Amino acid sequence: MATFKPRTLSGFMELLPAPQQQMEKIMEILRETYALYGFTPLDTPAIEDAQVLLAKSGGDTEKQIYRFQKGDSDLALRFDLTVPLAKYVALHYNELAFPFRRYQIGKVYRGERAQRGRFREFYQADIDIIGDGKLDILCEAEIPSIIYNTFTRLGLNRFVIRVNNRKILNGFYGMLGLRDKAADIMHTMDKLDKIGESAVKDILVDSCGLSLEQADEILRFATIRGSNEEVLQKLSQYAGKNELLDAGREELSAVCQNLSAFGVPQSHFAVDLTIARGLDYYTGTVYETTLLDYPEIGSVCSGGRYDNLAEFYIDKPLPGVGISIGLTRLFYVLGEQGLLNPALPTAPADVLVLPMTDDPKEAIRLATYLRNCGIRTQLYTEQKKFKQKMSYADKLSFPFAVILGEDEIAQGKCALKNMQTGEQALLSYEETATAIGKALEEREQIAVILEQ
Amino acid sequence: MATFKPRTLSGFMELLPAPQQQMEKIMEILRETYALYGFTPLDTPAIEDAQVLLAKSGGDTEKQIYRFQKGDSDLALRFDLTVPLAKYVALHYNELAFPFRRYQIGKVYRGERAQRGRFREFYQADIDIIGDGKLDILCEAEIPSIIYNTFTRLGLNRFVIRVNNRKILNGFYGMLGLRDKAADIMHTMDKLDKIGESAVKDILVDSCGLSLEQADEILRFATIRGSNEEVLQKLSQYAGKNELLDAGREELSAVCQNLSAFGVPQSHFAVDLTIARGLDYYTGTVYETTLLDYPEIGSVCSGGRYDNLAEFYIDKPLPGVGISIGLTRLFYVLGEQGLLNPALPTAPADVLVLPMTDDPKEAIRLATYLRNCGIRTQLYTEQKKFKQKMSYADKLSFPFAVILGEDEIAQGKCALKNMQTGEQALLSYEETATAIGKALEEREQIAVILEQ
Repeated sequence: MATFKPRTLSGFMELLPAPQQQMEKIMEILRETYALYGFTPLDTPAIEDAQVLLAKSGGDTEKQIYRFQKGDSDLALRFDLTVPLAKYVALHYNELAFPFRRYQIGKVYRGERAQRGRFREFYQADIDIIGDGKLDILCEAEIPSIIYNTFTRLGLNRFVIRVNNRKILNGFYGMLGLRDKAADIMHTMDKLDKIGESAVKDILVDSCGLSLEQADEILRFATIRGSNEEVLQKLSQYAGKNELLDAGREELSAVCQNLSAFGVPQSHFAVDLTIARGLDYYTGTVYETTLLDYPEIGSVCSGGRYDNLAEFYIDKPLPGVGISIGLTRLFYVLGEQGLLNPALPTAPADVLVLPMTDDPKEAIRLATYLRNCGIRTQLYTEQKKFKQKMSYADKLSFPFAVILGEDEIAQGKCALKNMQTGEQALLSYEETATAIGKALEEREQIAVILEQ
Repeated sequence: MATFKPRTLSGFMELLPAPQQQMEKIMEILRETYALYGFTPLDTPAIEDAQVLLAKSGGDTEKQIYRFQKGDSDLALRFDLTVPLAKYVALHYNELAFPFRRYQIGKVYRGERAQRGRFREFYQADIDIIGDGKLDILCEAEIPSIIYNTFTRLGLNRFVIRVNNRKILNGFYGMLGLRDKAADIMHTMDKLDKIGESAVKDILVDSCGLSLEQADEILRFATIRGSNEEVLQKLSQYAGKNELLDAGREELSAVCQNLSAFGVPQSHFAVDLTIARGLDYYTGTVYETTLLDYPEIGSVCSGGRYDNLAEFYIDKPLPGVGISIGLTRLFYVLGEQGLLNPALPTAPADVLVLPMTDDPKEAIRLATYLRNCGIRTQLYTEQKKFKQKMSYADKLSFPFAVILGEDEIAQGKCALKNMQTGEQALLSYEETATAIGKALEEREQIAVILEQ
């Protein structure tokens, strides 16, 4: 007697097999693309010492974190992949070679209030480059090419990577004598997209204590528009007025300079002085990536340059640059918007072998042969009617079925059925492997995301 | 000022980049091999409702489980992948097609006392085939071929898959009038390898309450030896004496029958009547896999047939068969025994591009070109002396470095250095990609495990 109602906790994504295959494909592309740029895969524990994990944090993190005792240990589940990276680099500092480039795709945990599209357990897919003492601006210039390549390989084209530099913002606020209000101003400016110019202006004046003139000047600055070259050109009017601003402008210019060598088209890259990123620890280049047709989703890949990854764990300056994709949320949103390509194969295998004889030996041999050819092959094992076997193949969307009865065996052949077209042909085992292999090569080209 | 000493909790594996690459390679091979047999990947939350997770359990599980409150919720970390599978299949019963074949490679948590080689967070790599009401014996026959293929692809040859059937044991004990002591006897017999015959006999008599004769008969039965055919032959002397024993003998015989069609050599498969598996829920075929040269490691891949996966969650009989690899422990043991192949590439990329000019543009172009050819390429970004750049390439074991100075650029070429042989050649970009590509194909053949 079943005594417990099975359930999955709310806020925890659990996919059916077909969408799980889509998710796996996305993760495979991320792994491949990150590796293409020389990032090494890393895996750190999901549970850490709570003290270590919370060294730097406060506020929301403390509230959201899953923290618990086991024996005498004060434990917590990681809430991002950055703090574990900081711990890792500090702990293994002497064993690593710098620049240290790693990617990590892993689950993180935040006990937020559950709501549609918000997850308590979710994948982050991060890359970071960590320098020892120094890190060249070239790393910041490389990041947009990784973002571009990643999203293009997923099947997206209509997106833009928006880039800014915190030194420009801090320098500009400093120029206005507002350096110590920089953080508040940036937090406010970050809302520009969401709440609009006049609401932002109100906050700048009422909450941040700026004069109307200062607020206007900041808004005017943030809305400098034009091509990348034009924006950089307009920025040069401030040259010599503030050292930090100058440094930021030079860095931004260096990032833009090598875009085409890195294979990033101008169309997919925009200098955007409104980008600030909420997190305080960014100190240089900052990135956001937005889907042109779905601005309401917000940034799907963000990050930036920071000066000190692991200051709480080690007395060495470890500057770095990194980006993060909130994979679980991205997957959810892609599904909601109907952007997941229904043509992507999601069957558990490429072919289903159906034995039609009492002795399954020849069907087993054929399945073994196909597997040795690298073809994902499921042997249908159950004693069912032909119709039920075909309906199983249909339900799971197998692209091919192979039928093996007495007649076929007598001829040393098998019947290969294309489940999409319904076509069926009597082929040798070798011909079967070739035909399936050819179709698979075509299916390999199918992207996981299909823009509409 | 660093204020927290970074540390990783004891019992939690955290690898340096090179061994992590070995671990990733193992996981990649498991994913590929499981998929080759038509298993679909699955991913379930690491956190579940504690009530749901503990529906069936007791004893050690209760003690070892990580259980905690968050708000009003009673939560726990999964301690295996079988209970979450049972929940998943019960919850999504109407949306799945049966037989349902899934693999899952994921972390599980057990707060055991920490000791060398024991982990509190560890990967399990499971496959299961779940039937709806029925599941053909053919599934049980297929499992050894998956085990064989998996370990062979990892690079192992000296291993044997030991197979038995619980019906044979239960039937035999029933024949002796000991059916209700079957579980105790099996638990005891499971220790035969570890504590030897006479100690087992003592337990059977003293703790299980068997007569000396019964204990002798059971030990005699368990030590039936010979080729697979010989053992089955010897078993047939009991034919007709007990229905369950007969059924078990027929199943075991059916499993053996199709081995060669499934591509499993006789040398890697042994009918072994001592195999029982500790877990009570197995009801038919049981498997263990042992490394011939390292019997002390115990089984590296075990599993079996069960009749009722999800009885606590759904009133449907869901028989299945599955196996599990304790991946983290296996990896640890392979390392301890020196079986991880040092020749397996562990560099973050296939080639390191070293710009030797002030303007990195041409080096960036070359890196972009190589990536477009599918070659994992890291661009060296820092301003360092040539010697330091080469020492970085050495330390990370890059197989190739490409040096690009004024001279090379003037000729439209680059200098490709084979880091293993020290050979260097001036090549066009295309020739460079071809040369690296060719070397990579050879490296693709390198197995992750190297037997000694």
